[in-house]
Amino acid sequence: MDETDYPQLTRYAKAFTGLTPEKEALLLAAAPVIKPGLPGVTERFYSELQRIDRTAPFIEGRLEQLKATHLAWLEGLFSGPYDEAYTQAMYRVGQVHVKVHLPVEFMSGGMSLIGEELIDLVCRVHAGEPHRWAPLLKAVNAVMGFSLLVMQQSYQSSSLTAELDRFLAITGMSRTLFNNLAGAYRN
Amino acid sequence: MDETDYPQLTRYAKAFTGLTPEKEALLLAAAPVIKPGLPGVTERFYSELQRIDRTAPFIEGRLEQLKATHLAWLEGLFSGPYDEAYTQAMYRVGQVHVKVHLPVEFMSGGMSLIGEELIDLVCRVHAGEPHRWAPLLKAVNAVMGFSLLVMQQSYQSSSLTAELDRFLAITGMSRTLFNNLAGAYRN
Repeated sequence: MDETDYPQLTRYAKAFTGLTPEKEALLLAAAPVIKPGLPGVTERFYSELQRIDRTAPFIEGRLEQLKATHLAWLEGLFSGPYDEAYTQAMYRVGQVHVKVHLPVEFMSGGMSLIGEELIDLVCRVHAGEPHRWAPLLKAVNAVMGFSLLVMQQSYQSSSLTAELDRFLAITGMSRTLFNNLAGAYRN
Repeated sequence: MDETDYPQLTRYAKAFTGLTPEKEALLLAAAPVIKPGLPGVTERFYSELQRIDRTAPFIEGRLEQLKATHLAWLEGLFSGPYDEAYTQAMYRVGQVHVKVHLPVEFMSGGMSLIGEELIDLVCRVHAGEPHRWAPLLKAVNAVMGFSLLVMQQSYQSSSLTAELDRFLAITGMSRTLFNNLAGAYRN
């Protein structure tokens, strides 16, 4: 059961990350020149992850599948629409991260490494036109921030739920008893 | 009691966000031209937060104090050293965020809005020298990612601890009993 209000979350996350209609239009307009560079971004991202002790074990043995998923997401950043369905998809990614026990810092760390790659890519595809860099870089910053915000809100919510499940399992307490106690505690 | 291994966390967070010695040197070298622009970044950041329904209540009545703290942090991004003490300071920020019940998404949302401002600032202070933009923007991306990663890892750890405290309070169970049950559950 998912009680998330996606229209509300979409509006909130856009306001909080500066993802305006103008920036969305810029991302879509840049797609034809940016998208051919994205497989290289994915390649270099996973090379980095393989060099870090703590991340390497999470990709071992399923590198090709992860790269394909990652590239599809990267392309989505420049494909739109940036609507409730996109929000819902990013929310699901946060839930899946908890389910597969991905540490929380993988989300912001990943965004940092990808952000660096995208700065290079934007400047490269518009080489000789530096007046186009800042507007597009700000649009990229916003859509990545938007994705991260939604993912993390969902990750946080899922981890607290998982933690409660763990407490119930450890104590052998039923959820009904816990809910009744929680209700009484609040009053 | 803080059992965090800060030297290890510092190395890990640097690797995961691409904060290299070269980028640290670039940030320090840019300080004299960047720092005068930072009060404007803080001003615009808090103007944005005042316009968002969910963030506005958190700043009401203490805007000036928050701005001062925020500006000091922004200046720290260009001051270094990016050492264990910096990591420890960012770790504490994550703990404080949990203590004052700041929603998890305030961290990534904030970074997005600030990131956008810093893109403008970097391009403005080096106007006419676009070859300097990408290297400095990548350094800014890395140090912001570093700060976010450390803050969020700490936020996550503190929220799980707070969740256990809530569980113990609701159930009336002692920590000793819970720890004994947890030990038994693991075996």
